[in-house]
Amino acid sequence: MKPVITAFDWVPPFAQGQVRDLRVRWALEEVGQSYDVRYLAQGAHKGPEHRALQPFGQVPTYEEGDLVLFESGAIVFHIAERFKGLLPPERDGRSRAVEWMFAALNSVEPPIMDHAIATIFEAGEPWSKARLPSVNARIDERLGELSRRLGDRDWLDGEFTAGDLLMVAVVRILEGDALLDPYPNLIAYVARGTARPAFRRALAAQIAGFTGEPPARFKEWAEKHKQAQGETA
Amino acid sequence: MKPVITAFDWVPPFAQGQVRDLRVRWALEEVGQSYDVRYLAQGAHKGPEHRALQPFGQVPTYEEGDLVLFESGAIVFHIAERFKGLLPPERDGRSRAVEWMFAALNSVEPPIMDHAIATIFEAGEPWSKARLPSVNARIDERLGELSRRLGDRDWLDGEFTAGDLLMVAVVRILEGDALLDPYPNLIAYVARGTARPAFRRALAAQIAGFTGEPPARFKEWAEKHKQAQGETA
Repeated sequence: MKPVITAFDWVPPFAQGQVRDLRVRWALEEVGQSYDVRYLAQGAHKGPEHRALQPFGQVPTYEEGDLVLFESGAIVFHIAERFKGLLPPERDGRSRAVEWMFAALNSVEPPIMDHAIATIFEAGEPWSKARLPSVNARIDERLGELSRRLGDRDWLDGEFTAGDLLMVAVVRILEGDALLDPYPNLIAYVARGTARPAFRRALAAQIAGFTGEPPARFKEWAEKHKQAQGETA
Repeated sequence: MKPVITAFDWVPPFAQGQVRDLRVRWALEEVGQSYDVRYLAQGAHKGPEHRALQPFGQVPTYEEGDLVLFESGAIVFHIAERFKGLLPPERDGRSRAVEWMFAALNSVEPPIMDHAIATIFEAGEPWSKARLPSVNARIDERLGELSRRLGDRDWLDGEFTAGDLLMVAVVRILEGDALLDPYPNLIAYVARGTARPAFRRALAAQIAGFTGEPPARFKEWAEKHKQAQGETA
């Protein structure tokens, strides 16, 4: 049975290649499971039909027969349990892979998302520039800790697991950002993860899906954002 | 074999009853598994010995024979898999319980932690007061969505699961805060969760463990925080 996921038919440029269905596509590609995509126009994700599947009005969702799941971390875990290739066979290794999944989403991603809030969604607010150093300091603390733990290993704990998949997906949000410069092993880790054929296929599929129209409110937002960047530059 | 967790021997008053070993203690109490605690003095969690177990210098950790785990979400999941009582027996129900675990930690907790950053750690910063409405708006959006999904059910998906355990632990960070006022079903949900005997035992055990001394830098911080609150009041 082919699972069906949801994804957006268009997102602003800064989000292309970052929307979380990418993580689910990547997991499905790693385990060799084909899937179908139901695309949502901007706005439809906040409507009652999608909210019946996803209470927070986000993508992706995952449908497989009677099972409906949301929350990309949980979907990646479900795929990793259901198919071979993303979790070690023995129980302790499996628990450690799950540990890195939670670490990626609960310890490393929140400060990185805070950076996105500060530089994108609150970019035009008067406090944003003053606040950025403290946001960056929290990110740097986590990156330093992750870098020291990774050391010169290829992956966080033995072979590539769903933990690496989510950690690479989280750290690559900063790809090309100076925040990663002090940590060449993390840059190499992200490069290693994103060079995987399964990742390349997942990314290409997400990008190819952006065939929809930008909504009018995006054009307004983009204009305001451009102005705000000019003011704080 | 009795698992061993780590916890702090003292934390500031605002964190007492919130440190994340509570979630692990609660899970262990729910499944009826006794445990030992190794207490860390403030500061020891950032030392090399603890970092060998927990790369981010946090508590709790969980040791069970050769297995060492960190990240409270992952530890709760491990306990839920290892012992009966926190996950439904059938696969789909299990995947949905895991979905709520990730939703608690990745969709609901980050904006709530942002509130803690704004009102505690950045309380003295000049931008904090101006920024708070946008932080609160993000929390309110999530609480409203959670409230609508919960409806008049006792728990998120059938019987109490590890997903409810983490969601209650996250939402109760706001217990007594006006942000919860518009959502009486969430207030009742938290009350239902925290009335469970396993929760009461876990909370009492965490509080009883705070027998250590406040470090000198806390006294400085408390003084500064008090001043900052006076300034923004």
